[in-house]
Amino acid sequence: MDEARWRKLTDWPLLACAVVFLVAYSWEVLADLRGTERAAAESVMAVIWVAFLVDYVVRLSLASPRWPWFRAHLPDLAIVLLPFLRPLRLIRLVALFAILQRTTGGAFRGRVVQYAIGASVLIVYLGALAMVDAERGHGDIDTLGEGLWWALVTITTVGYGDMTPVTTTGQLVAAAVMFAGIALLGVVTASFASWIVDRVAQHDASEQAATRAQVDELTREVRALRVELARAGTQDRVTTSP
Amino acid sequence: MDEARWRKLTDWPLLACAVVFLVAYSWEVLADLRGTERAAAESVMAVIWVAFLVDYVVRLSLASPRWPWFRAHLPDLAIVLLPFLRPLRLIRLVALFAILQRTTGGAFRGRVVQYAIGASVLIVYLGALAMVDAERGHGDIDTLGEGLWWALVTITTVGYGDMTPVTTTGQLVAAAVMFAGIALLGVVTASFASWIVDRVAQHDASEQAATRAQVDELTREVRALRVELARAGTQDRVTTSP
Amino acid sequence: MDEARWRKLTDWPLLACAVVFLVAYSWEVLADLRGTERAAAESVMAVIWVAFLVDYVVRLSLASPRWPWFRAHLPDLAIVLLPFLRPLRLIRLVALFAILQRTTGGAFRGRVVQYAIGASVLIVYLGALAMVDAERGHGDIDTLGEGLWWALVTITTVGYGDMTPVTTTGQLVAAAVMFAGIALLGVVTASFASWIVDRVAQHDASEQAATRAQVDELTREVRALRVELARAGTQDRVTTSP
Amino acid sequence: MDEARWRKLTDWPLLACAVVFLVAYSWEVLADLRGTERAAAESVMAVIWVAFLVDYVVRLSLASPRWPWFRAHLPDLAIVLLPFLRPLRLIRLVALFAILQRTTGGAFRGRVVQYAIGASVLIVYLGALAMVDAERGHGDIDTLGEGLWWALVTITTVGYGDMTPVTTTGQLVAAAVMFAGIALLGVVTASFASWIVDRVAQHDASEQAATRAQVDELTREVRALRVELARAGTQDRVTTSP
Repeated sequence: MDEARWRKLTDWPLLACAVVFLVAYSWEVLADLRGTERAAAESVMAVIWVAFLVDYVVRLSLASPRWPWFRAHLPDLAIVLLPFLRPLRLIRLVALFAILQRTTGGAFRGRVVQYAIGASVLIVYLGALAMVDAERGHGDIDTLGEGLWWALVTITTVGYGDMTPVTTTGQLVAAAVMFAGIALLGVVTASFASWIVDRVAQHDASEQAATRAQVDELTREVRALRVELARAGTQDRVTTSP
Repeated sequence: MDEARWRKLTDWPLLACAVVFLVAYSWEVLADLRGTERAAAESVMAVIWVAFLVDYVVRLSLASPRWPWFRAHLPDLAIVLLPFLRPLRLIRLVALFAILQRTTGGAFRGRVVQYAIGASVLIVYLGALAMVDAERGHGDIDTLGEGLWWALVTITTVGYGDMTPVTTTGQLVAAAVMFAGIALLGVVTASFASWIVDRVAQHDASEQAATRAQVDELTREVRALRVELARAGTQDRVTTSP
Repeated sequence: MDEARWRKLTDWPLLACAVVFLVAYSWEVLADLRGTERAAAESVMAVIWVAFLVDYVVRLSLASPRWPWFRAHLPDLAIVLLPFLRPLRLIRLVALFAILQRTTGGAFRGRVVQYAIGASVLIVYLGALAMVDAERGHGDIDTLGEGLWWALVTITTVGYGDMTPVTTTGQLVAAAVMFAGIALLGVVTASFASWIVDRVAQHDASEQAATRAQVDELTREVRALRVELARAGTQDRVTTSP
Repeated sequence: MDEARWRKLTDWPLLACAVVFLVAYSWEVLADLRGTERAAAESVMAVIWVAFLVDYVVRLSLASPRWPWFRAHLPDLAIVLLPFLRPLRLIRLVALFAILQRTTGGAFRGRVVQYAIGASVLIVYLGALAMVDAERGHGDIDTLGEGLWWALVTITTVGYGDMTPVTTTGQLVAAAVMFAGIALLGVVTASFASWIVDRVAQHDASEQAATRAQVDELTREVRALRVELARAGTQDRVTTSP
């Protein structure tokens, strides 16, 4: 079995795992679970973490040139190993969106915009959740509503400062959301830029860049000419030889 | 009657409706209306909302492949249905600018910049209005002046934090203004990028990309050559045959 | 005399006027002048304002199609008429940089970056000055140092909020600096984008876009071929006719 | 000996110097050294500063057209002379990353992104260090943790304002970090834009821009045609002459 086939088989189960993880983590954080309920939620998350770990190890062993695969999938490794740093464990769920992404078609730029929107929504929710988990009882951010407001203010790089994390874990979560904000700004801007460049280029058809298809057609034309010339030359000789 | 004709007929009446809606909403919020005056303003807005709803339903029924139209006009549906979430009702007024836009000509990039400026001005005013409506008596933003200052600080993503919304409605309005800010940054940057790319490309004419017009001319030249060759070949044969 | 010649004659005197205006305004604001000294500074600025007004009127009258010139030079009109709104009067000094710009050569992108840096430095200084003028005694910003710090925090869209304007004039100045910040971000990003696009395109020479020069050369080649063919055909006929 | 050879010889020793400088400065700031320990750290830094100064002078004297080299290396001069303005002395260490950069290969856009990430990490650390050095005992930023949090909030242009510098030196450091933030945003956005433009262009191969390689091939084809024609013409004459 090769890696592509394994991915096809495991995509949907892993998506389900990610959703269950999200639900379990949301429940634990939002209901502020204690005792056996907390243990139950933690167990569910641990089992799912094992599933992701197994998936990573299997894919690494199936990859034929192993070193390039390892280098190209460092983020996957981080997603598997980061769980020990608890709130960042949630980053793993971005995989959910990547899987959803793979199932939809459409033009490249449209997919980039969809991905950016989807990833932003996920990051805002996960950031809010992780922030409430880290900061409850320590700072200003105690409820999901406050967490969402903080995450929105941060990911857009507005940064009012009416609520700021005070714990180290909260500040690490904040750093992740801030850099997500820079990436969001970058993707939005780049998509607009690509769209404007395309539209400006299409405006005046006579000024559009020559396409490969056009030059290929011209090359065919010249080759046909050469064949014709060769034929004409032969005919000449045939005609004039006697 | 098809959809394009319907749009042509209804553009100006709907623009008038949007302006009346803006005036009524501004009056209600800024004069902090109570009793019968408030009821009057609310009635005017309800009537205009019905007009927009009717317009949407008629356009949906006139569209010939209905499903693609529905998918492409989801924002229009949101504009019609969001009124129940009161301050966001104002988003509908962005339609005003889209209509104005349609009536002006000009180069593509120029129109994008005009649209961005116009939409920003509208969003700052509407955001300020909706924020005052949501926050008056709850937080720091009580007058239109304070609302405009807050909206400017937010849409530019500066975010001093000297005034921040504290109600959930206010925070939803703020989220809309923040994302408008990201879009504004994106459009401004993309326009500059497109302009610089164009100017750099024009700088050295001998290095400019080959245009389709140029390659078309070359293709005509080669075809003429082929015709000439065919004629010459025929002449050869004619001349040399006897 | 046409407009270009007038501009050439008046460039350096107007630059000198702008510098004198900047010095007079700086002196008035920073020394917090009162009485006759204030009157002296105000008189100097009024005289310079008249010079700018005369320059605008002369250029408008010299422009041959007057309406397009008027439309293209609306910012110049604003620079002349805004003085009545006092701190914004300083925007006029951006003209200083535009004049300096005209005297230096260099590649387009480099000049855009130089202009962006120069304009940013000028806007930070002028914004700080105007802010101190507007806010002294009303808010947090009383000295040039505080003004410069506030302007830096604002133009980079960081917006700590440790110092914020509280007067309407101060908030108008802040709005100008904020939008300058968005423009600065846009220009910096666009310059990087143009540079990266260029460098990526140059990386693999065989993948570079075909240039007009290349296609022009090819077209000459084909034309030469046609001439050759015509000559050959003639020779054929000449050779074979007897 | 020319400048390139000198650079090759001194790259690694200067990198080692920069690392030692960073360690000495970190130690002095973080351990808040006093007395002989402080003198020791200061001496180490002074010696390294002399090494950088000597390197600069030697390279200037080796450069054959001296004036263009001087103009192109103004930042190097600043890096050598700024030490007198103590916290900005650390900017010199960005040289470290430039040297590391030179030793890695890879595609242009990838290297730009790597450089941006590396420079950002360095700037955040150096900014935090310099800020603690400048602000300890004066404001909110007293530990490396607080300094790093402040630098992250600033470089992403979020700017909560929960910690802001109050000393002039601290504000100069902050200005450097803010402009680094604008540059970071610019590079991230530009890289995304270049990537999207490339991918959109690759999407439809028949619409790709004609390449120089293609036109070169076409030109070869036409030249071959001309040779063939010349040969055919000669043969014609040879065949038909008798």
